[in-house]
Amino acid sequence: MTTPWTLNENRVFSSNPAVRSRAADLYGTIADLPIVAPHGHVAPELLADAHARFTNPAELFIIPDHYVFRMLYSQGVPMESLGVPREDGGPIETDPRAIWRTFCEHFHLFQGTPTGLWMKAELVQLFGVDVRPSAETADALYDQIDARLKDDDFTVRALFERFNVEFLTTTDAATADLSVHASIQADGLPVGPTFRPDAAMQIAHPDWRSTLDALGERSGVTITSLNEFREALRVRRQQFVDRGAKATDHGLFTSFIEPLGEQQAESLFKRGLAGEATTEDAEAFHAHMLFEMAGMSVDDGLVMQVHFGSRRNHHTQIYERFGLDKGADIPVAMDFTRGLHSLLNAYGSDPRFRLVTFTLDESTYARELAPMAGHYPALRLGAPWWFFDSVLGFERFLDRVVETAGVYNLAGFNDDTRAFASIPARHDVWRRAVSNWLAGQVERGLVDADAAPDMARWLAYDAAKSAYRLT
Amino acid sequence: MTTPWTLNENRVFSSNPAVRSRAADLYGTIADLPIVAPHGHVAPELLADAHARFTNPAELFIIPDHYVFRMLYSQGVPMESLGVPREDGGPIETDPRAIWRTFCEHFHLFQGTPTGLWMKAELVQLFGVDVRPSAETADALYDQIDARLKDDDFTVRALFERFNVEFLTTTDAATADLSVHASIQADGLPVGPTFRPDAAMQIAHPDWRSTLDALGERSGVTITSLNEFREALRVRRQQFVDRGAKATDHGLFTSFIEPLGEQQAESLFKRGLAGEATTEDAEAFHAHMLFEMAGMSVDDGLVMQVHFGSRRNHHTQIYERFGLDKGADIPVAMDFTRGLHSLLNAYGSDPRFRLVTFTLDESTYARELAPMAGHYPALRLGAPWWFFDSVLGFERFLDRVVETAGVYNLAGFNDDTRAFASIPARHDVWRRAVSNWLAGQVERGLVDADAAPDMARWLAYDAAKSAYRLT
Amino acid sequence: MTTPWTLNENRVFSSNPAVRSRAADLYGTIADLPIVAPHGHVAPELLADAHARFTNPAELFIIPDHYVFRMLYSQGVPMESLGVPREDGGPIETDPRAIWRTFCEHFHLFQGTPTGLWMKAELVQLFGVDVRPSAETADALYDQIDARLKDDDFTVRALFERFNVEFLTTTDAATADLSVHASIQADGLPVGPTFRPDAAMQIAHPDWRSTLDALGERSGVTITSLNEFREALRVRRQQFVDRGAKATDHGLFTSFIEPLGEQQAESLFKRGLAGEATTEDAEAFHAHMLFEMAGMSVDDGLVMQVHFGSRRNHHTQIYERFGLDKGADIPVAMDFTRGLHSLLNAYGSDPRFRLVTFTLDESTYARELAPMAGHYPALRLGAPWWFFDSVLGFERFLDRVVETAGVYNLAGFNDDTRAFASIPARHDVWRRAVSNWLAGQVERGLVDADAAPDMARWLAYDAAKSAYRLT
Repeated sequence: MTTPWTLNENRVFSSNPAVRSRAADLYGTIADLPIVAPHGHVAPELLADAHARFTNPAELFIIPDHYVFRMLYSQGVPMESLGVPREDGGPIETDPRAIWRTFCEHFHLFQGTPTGLWMKAELVQLFGVDVRPSAETADALYDQIDARLKDDDFTVRALFERFNVEFLTTTDAATADLSVHASIQADGLPVGPTFRPDAAMQIAHPDWRSTLDALGERSGVTITSLNEFREALRVRRQQFVDRGAKATDHGLFTSFIEPLGEQQAESLFKRGLAGEATTEDAEAFHAHMLFEMAGMSVDDGLVMQVHFGSRRNHHTQIYERFGLDKGADIPVAMDFTRGLHSLLNAYGSDPRFRLVTFTLDESTYARELAPMAGHYPALRLGAPWWFFDSVLGFERFLDRVVETAGVYNLAGFNDDTRAFASIPARHDVWRRAVSNWLAGQVERGLVDADAAPDMARWLAYDAAKSAYRLT
Repeated sequence: MTTPWTLNENRVFSSNPAVRSRAADLYGTIADLPIVAPHGHVAPELLADAHARFTNPAELFIIPDHYVFRMLYSQGVPMESLGVPREDGGPIETDPRAIWRTFCEHFHLFQGTPTGLWMKAELVQLFGVDVRPSAETADALYDQIDARLKDDDFTVRALFERFNVEFLTTTDAATADLSVHASIQADGLPVGPTFRPDAAMQIAHPDWRSTLDALGERSGVTITSLNEFREALRVRRQQFVDRGAKATDHGLFTSFIEPLGEQQAESLFKRGLAGEATTEDAEAFHAHMLFEMAGMSVDDGLVMQVHFGSRRNHHTQIYERFGLDKGADIPVAMDFTRGLHSLLNAYGSDPRFRLVTFTLDESTYARELAPMAGHYPALRLGAPWWFFDSVLGFERFLDRVVETAGVYNLAGFNDDTRAFASIPARHDVWRRAVSNWLAGQVERGLVDADAAPDMARWLAYDAAKSAYRLT
Repeated sequence: MTTPWTLNENRVFSSNPAVRSRAADLYGTIADLPIVAPHGHVAPELLADAHARFTNPAELFIIPDHYVFRMLYSQGVPMESLGVPREDGGPIETDPRAIWRTFCEHFHLFQGTPTGLWMKAELVQLFGVDVRPSAETADALYDQIDARLKDDDFTVRALFERFNVEFLTTTDAATADLSVHASIQADGLPVGPTFRPDAAMQIAHPDWRSTLDALGERSGVTITSLNEFREALRVRRQQFVDRGAKATDHGLFTSFIEPLGEQQAESLFKRGLAGEATTEDAEAFHAHMLFEMAGMSVDDGLVMQVHFGSRRNHHTQIYERFGLDKGADIPVAMDFTRGLHSLLNAYGSDPRFRLVTFTLDESTYARELAPMAGHYPALRLGAPWWFFDSVLGFERFLDRVVETAGVYNLAGFNDDTRAFASIPARHDVWRRAVSNWLAGQVERGLVDADAAPDMARWLAYDAAKSAYRLT
């Protein structure tokens, strides 16, 4: 392969010259704004260690990234050959060079995907790569990247600075030890935790009792009743607030957040304690507790984020062999109009409450979410997530929500990533897509030209700060 | 702000020069066609009074328009401060200049929205405005608009003439006094009523009995049974026909129009009379009566319009404080394939029957509505409605229905507005969007160039006349 | 009409000059690849007869094509006047010239539809037509086409050769006599059958018993139990394999393929034998048998195709008068995440299994199908089908699936047609749309320019061979 592999400086922009040119101008005004990353999954331990670095190309790009290995798996490549650890500790490929080679041989699978776009940006911009990964180039690229990873300016901390991150949050269990964040903050990094109590809600899960024990220990509240459970949550939320948290985060399979009567809630909680809760019990309890936690948000000011509608671990065999987050979480259809009715009626106009929603059901953008965001003051729409954290995903989102909700009811961008090195690439795609979308609207006379720069800045930067009350 | 605020003469058209140019040519052939407005919510009283005019800018643009105040409310502006009357007569802002100022301070919220597009067209074209509304320009604009509203040529009647309206209908309760229409028609205005009997179907509503009483009085039929209820409806429909009505209109929360057995229908009706009907009863009764009213349409020739799938008054607190139509009606998913099965099997091929559907669930455009419209002779698809009465809403509609149903199974455009002064702006956006869409198809070789003008004219004008049998 | 009616050589391509030019280049590399048509409905008898030809223009274009006559029917043209045979043998138009004339008078209905695009390509390319069908041109066109149909090079066989078909399959009942295929193959045509056992699954259908009898006869297995039924299916599948079949095909109204317990399955089968099965029984049995047939596919290697979610014969009156496939099959919403859960968990990672899905619910493309295809090795996504076998349908599909699943989890194109003469036109539209889509991605920097030709070739040709294991 002799074609040089370079980044198109107008990537993501329209192929229409007028739109492209205006998009580039708009993008120029926001490209270098600091990164505000109020929701993500970077491991805090990585940031706590001043000397942490990525050990090799496979560890950086492949092994921890289910966006990457799911695509190879879909074409018949065993996850073992990509170094993905097995739950049973069974044999997997451990040679990072061999893993990298397998990845490079299949790099063509990522053409046209956001993962391909991010990886190209990382390879070219961070590592100076100028040939495309392939069977032929795999070994040379491995050496080139591996050498760069060992450079002085390639610690995680150095990258953090280089990335110009103004604020970043991790996502942490209700039982998390926040001393890691204390030590990160002591070193001056603008990093806070996010309260994600999902595990504590899973009353039918075999590990729930031990989660409760840990929650009790962290909070200093012995949990034998629903009231004590609530108290423990409140205590822990306050500990998160004190440690700089701005938000909670919740994953919910359905779209229904629905309060139960006190007796029913208490009875479900007891069924959980007795080890008798069913999946339906757990779902009802979770839906109820989210309603309660909205009330807690009113009290303690934590913004409530909910990621709706993913059927986790759809492939049982993969879940049993490799565990959670292995690229087999599949979305389902949502019904937010009915599902959020109780919640929004209770808190949707309370100025102390803020709800940020994320969905994987694009059919709800225009039908349900935009109309609700264009009415309820408490609601801001989170950017496209997961499969839709992509150029076309962004365009469908903006096309479907802005006409009804405007841009000022949107929550800006979240990279939502555990792949630390991909953070700038992800924000960059959003900023390009936003600039291009606005440019297109201006060229069609649908947005005033002199209003577009503020809208671009809002979507790239201000909206996140506003939605998460960072200012 | 010193940038002059002007209308882009190519607004709505593509940024592609070839498409834009062809769109402008097509648009030129239809821009000045008369307005046919077979479905809307203009208050007939406004048209009946030869001297009626809008009293001030707030009364014209803000107070009665839930598209406008819902957007400000979504950003935390109290509806009271926008002069929206409270049900309890509680205190609200009454100074129109203060209301206008609040609106202007938030005008940026409308960038990229259809409301913003219509308002700009109205301000520039009707009022000669050349600066954008903002905190700085609010007072001067107030004076400018207010003065214009007092001009001789600014009565509603003068505007009606200026707008070149060929036919317009209002939407009227089954209990409406049609003498208002008689007086409008006596003055020579081409205005008819539309029969909207929703309130008469709400057997679980506390006001239903008084609605029945009024219906009985208007029709001269004492209503103590389902048969008498039917008879009263038939009488009133005929009165509407005699007064120039062309259509009925119905709002239905679900997509199911399903007949019940006579006994069951009668029993629901009696439960309503006894004040014992539940919400489920009411829904079943409404679904049944829509089936019956399709049969009445076969007899009296009134086109049947149904607006499907809006969850009205989603925000109870707002409903209780401000009443109906306050920007909190949120759509839900539809299932027309099953929902319209009975109706279309009974009447879908009857040449005397005509059904015009409106939906807020865009996922049904291509999946359900276009395949049905491309088969059943009685069915015509209404244009995008409400949130989708927008440039991108029109494009998604045309993209999704024309390939399957063609353009000749569409019902053209309805402005569906209570904002009288926005009527030309709304029709203009549709005409521009249609021209642009056709131009794009021609440029791609998907529509014959010499067929496009007839298609544009059909969509802008002929289709509405055909769908509503105005010719 | 004097405008010459010609094919735009850049049809389907973008109106953006850079995209159009690149699309044309890409298209140039794939336009002449052989046609691989692994799923379609051409009647095998047509291919078995070395002298078969189309008798007249109405017989070729109108009478057998529900895409065509449904559109005229939707505008009030009786199907009888288009020569569609009635089930009761009642009177219909039998003069092909009169039928053709009615069609031509309504040709404008097809502007902007895929049917219009295919017909224009056929008329211009196969018949040298250069005026658009209309009332005025109908008779002259009839003569021109009719004469051409009688030419020596217009036998079906001659067209087959001219179309450059590398492989084509028919779709055949489980009870089909495969000797027709034997005779086609004996003449050297690359044509195989496809095993479509739907009728054998309809345990509530009045004809089911006679279908079972025929199945028993063909397989040599007397069927009095579920086990014998299975055995008969296995035998017949093997006969299909021996006759060159590569795949099975199944039509399923829902998205649920769900195994029952053995006892329940046996009991449903017996209810069917006893003539007591309900519609629900039949649906559950079909869902179960599809699960079983996936297991059979693992054993015999037949690729499993499923066409999901069409409500067949929505219009009872038309079904009773004209029978199946009369343009009144209407899609419904799907839920593949739950519906395919059991199947994909059982076989989704088995290298011997291959599932190709087809849907009419576009909202599942990005939400469900692409995420599943981007994980499960056994799954390939079939191209848009039926109403979505169209330029915009292809674009929505590619826009929604490629970012998540890439192009290499797609199954390429299926023409799925019974209209033999339209096969090249259909493949051509797909090839143009694919070239254009890739060109657009390249121009936006989202696909590497030098990767696009392989992707185009894959989508046009290789993907179908790979998905159906033709290589």
